[in-house]
Amino acid sequence: MSNQILNKRVAVFFAEGFEEIEGLSVINLLWRAQIPCDKVSISGDTLVASSHGVSIVCDCSIEDEDFAFENYDMLVLPGGLPGTTNLRACEPLCQQLQAFAEAEQPIAAICAAPSVFAELGLLKGRRATSHPGFQHVLSEQGALLDTESAVVVDGTIITSQGMGCALEFGFAIVRYYLGEEAVETIKSSIVYQG
Amino acid sequence: MSNQILNKRVAVFFAEGFEEIEGLSVINLLWRAQIPCDKVSISGDTLVASSHGVSIVCDCSIEDEDFAFENYDMLVLPGGLPGTTNLRACEPLCQQLQAFAEAEQPIAAICAAPSVFAELGLLKGRRATSHPGFQHVLSEQGALLDTESAVVVDGTIITSQGMGCALEFGFAIVRYYLGEEAVETIKSSIVYQG
Repeated sequence: MSNQILNKRVAVFFAEGFEEIEGLSVINLLWRAQIPCDKVSISGDTLVASSHGVSIVCDCSIEDEDFAFENYDMLVLPGGLPGTTNLRACEPLCQQLQAFAEAEQPIAAICAAPSVFAELGLLKGRRATSHPGFQHVLSEQGALLDTESAVVVDGTIITSQGMGCALEFGFAIVRYYLGEEAVETIKSSIVYQG
Repeated sequence: MSNQILNKRVAVFFAEGFEEIEGLSVINLLWRAQIPCDKVSISGDTLVASSHGVSIVCDCSIEDEDFAFENYDMLVLPGGLPGTTNLRACEPLCQQLQAFAEAEQPIAAICAAPSVFAELGLLKGRRATSHPGFQHVLSEQGALLDTESAVVVDGTIITSQGMGCALEFGFAIVRYYLGEEAVETIKSSIVYQG
């Protein structure tokens, strides 16, 4: 379990217009796996509305005085529109995504959000996927595009195609830290037949 | 499309300790299918916390002066604990579940929540399923238990096994109103490979 978190946490970033199942499936599965994680708002407001009108209360905001990216081991981006556009426009987050990638710290994104990684130049020569509607962005930015897999793990970069793959995306994050047995235990408890 | 909603809506009921993916997958898929639905709190507070610490803002509460069950065509119960226990303890909701069942109006429940239907006597002689941990309640209350299917539809009663089946549960509700073609369109748009 070389990847197991000790004192660090997983941050899932919530922007206005996030896809609620993509964001919350990760929160849900990490909770079940007992991997510490936070719902982090990228605005000063911890109440954030999804692309389908579901407002959730985040645990903290990147604007909080005591918020620090170094408290986190992995940064996770849900998709959704305009959520993905808002994540891309968040300068402190984008700087940290680049820093994490350079340090080979894990980053993960699903649906439209892998396009943020691509536009930051993080997917050059890396195997990756995204929602079919955003795959051209990955290709244009030099990614080795995988159009078939629900989830692609290339080293410390995890990408996934869409809301219909949200559980597989969450499983990949659990697997990264705890291995396949932990994933299988959760699949059984939630009656996952996929 | 004999089942299509005209002026009525689907109500998804949220109690403290609900399973967020089970509840919100239905909201998400009905939104995508353009089937009107509301997140209904069973307490006087529209802010409701899930079993995994995710607080969401509901659209309304059954305690609102202008709330009326007759504005709804279908009643949906997410699972989760203690969410399911709280749904079972909500007398106005349980009375309406019985009234809907008697009138052959649709009702749906997932995970632990089909046990509420069972305890109200609504599953006698009906094909149904639930989370494996609650299937004994269904059997004891005379249901024709299906332990294999992710989702079971018996006339106007829709039941499902667990969080890992939440999308299939939502698809079954969309299918009830709009048929298979609408479900296939959504599956394609969310990259569902199940």
